Amino acid sequence: MQQKPLILVTNDDGVSAPGILHLSSIAKKFGDVYVIAPDKPQSGMGHAITINAMLRIQKTNYHAGVIEEYSCTGTPVDCVKMAISKLLPRKPDLVLSGINHGSNSSINVIYSGTMSAAIEGSLEGTSAIGFSLSDYDINADFSATSSYIEKITASVLKDELPKGVCLNVNFPKLKSDEISGLKVCRQAKANWVEDFEERKDPYGRSYYWLTGKFVNFEPDAKDTDEWALANGYVSVVPIMHDLTAHNYITHLKNTL
Amino acid sequence: MQQKPLILVTNDDGVSAPGILHLSSIAKKFGDVYVIAPDKPQSGMGHAITINAMLRIQKTNYHAGVIEEYSCTGTPVDCVKMAISKLLPRKPDLVLSGINHGSNSSINVIYSGTMSAAIEGSLEGTSAIGFSLSDYDINADFSATSSYIEKITASVLKDELPKGVCLNVNFPKLKSDEISGLKVCRQAKANWVEDFEERKDPYGRSYYWLTGKFVNFEPDAKDTDEWALANGYVSVVPIMHDLTAHNYITHLKNTL
Repeated sequence: MQQKPLILVTNDDGVSAPGILHLSSIAKKFGDVYVIAPDKPQSGMGHAITINAMLRIQKTNYHAGVIEEYSCTGTPVDCVKMAISKLLPRKPDLVLSGINHGSNSSINVIYSGTMSAAIEGSLEGTSAIGFSLSDYDINADFSATSSYIEKITASVLKDELPKGVCLNVNFPKLKSDEISGLKVCRQAKANWVEDFEERKDPYGRSYYWLTGKFVNFEPDAKDTDEWALANGYVSVVPIMHDLTAHNYITHLKNTL
Repeated sequence: MQQKPLILVTNDDGVSAPGILHLSSIAKKFGDVYVIAPDKPQSGMGHAITINAMLRIQKTNYHAGVIEEYSCTGTPVDCVKMAISKLLPRKPDLVLSGINHGSNSSINVIYSGTMSAAIEGSLEGTSAIGFSLSDYDINADFSATSSYIEKITASVLKDELPKGVCLNVNFPKLKSDEISGLKVCRQAKANWVEDFEERKDPYGRSYYWLTGKFVNFEPDAKDTDEWALANGYVSVVPIMHDLTAHNYITHLKNTL
């Protein structure tokens, strides 16, 4: 009998967040599931790793029907490294990250701990998918995501992703019957225009909170993830970690 | 008279690190320099931003001949956002990040706070360059980097980088007369094979330190940054923040 797929489930909202509980409950239909996730929210951690501090891990008990689960004091990327290097019995067949409470479409991919965990999976040579729902509510309704997560997971287990590529899947905040379907697309050109809200502490000293406004530079581009989400689709963007701007190399050779 | 270029200098080793002092001393030959950098080492922070905590800034006095300098309690990316949104008198003409104590070639670009600060600059629509020296020593000798930093900075101020592209410049640990020259190249396919060193605290509980071994999957590829550095060149890689794996979109459309 063939071995069941070994699936690592992680996220950036923490090991007990509703989104990862929903994801592990779907993942266990496809194989043996190990959960290793941060012990506290790690949103916005990007591809951070912990090199100036030590890490601890702890067995936890939030996920029904998984083989083992752990929380880790590190970042989402630390969790993937720790899982593959220390905790899993063998190299995983698939890394699933999420479901994030909040969108990771377009430029958010670069700030996202959820997506960095998926990218780290692909760096380790494993197929990986990050899932995010465009709803920051801790009590967000994840039910409409299930059938799509099953479809995409089954497809990736059957047709392994190429080395260095993972998937960024984002769900609109809609009910099942309102979703238009899946759409494979590219990362939209977009940005956050920051503002820092200044406040005073009780001693009169200034401190700041990062806030910002999302700006989509190409709202009419139908091949982008932002357009897909705005029009009721589940967006699927293949993501790579080769950051080389290959088409600028020749120009640079001529000018430098 | 034309306005002098406004140059933002930042890093991830902290506002008083020798590498950033060296960089600001070169930058001021090209324009009005503002330094905004982390108040403590932030290596390995990747593209992390601070959304679960507040930030503070403080005027500092480490850099000779700059217009203003500040330390910030946040990550390198926070520093760039804070600078552009709050501290600079206008949008900068150039963001310079570094000089990092340690290489940021190949896959290190994705973990690097230094390079994430440069990428954030390019996200904000500004030309940006990250500089790193392949020497982790706090007392590293940066003298061989000067003429190359001047050449690349002059070139980028004259020939602005395209939107969404920044440069990743790495120096080998060599004296001036041992360096073979500049080489424009691509990010090598490489990875870190992690290990976590387990230790016991005084109470018998385990904790872990992230360690790892760097593996270059294509040591003979002469068009890569790793080859350039190993052969005595200063490597220059154009870096972009569109992570879409464009050449996998068609396949994915057919299989999903």
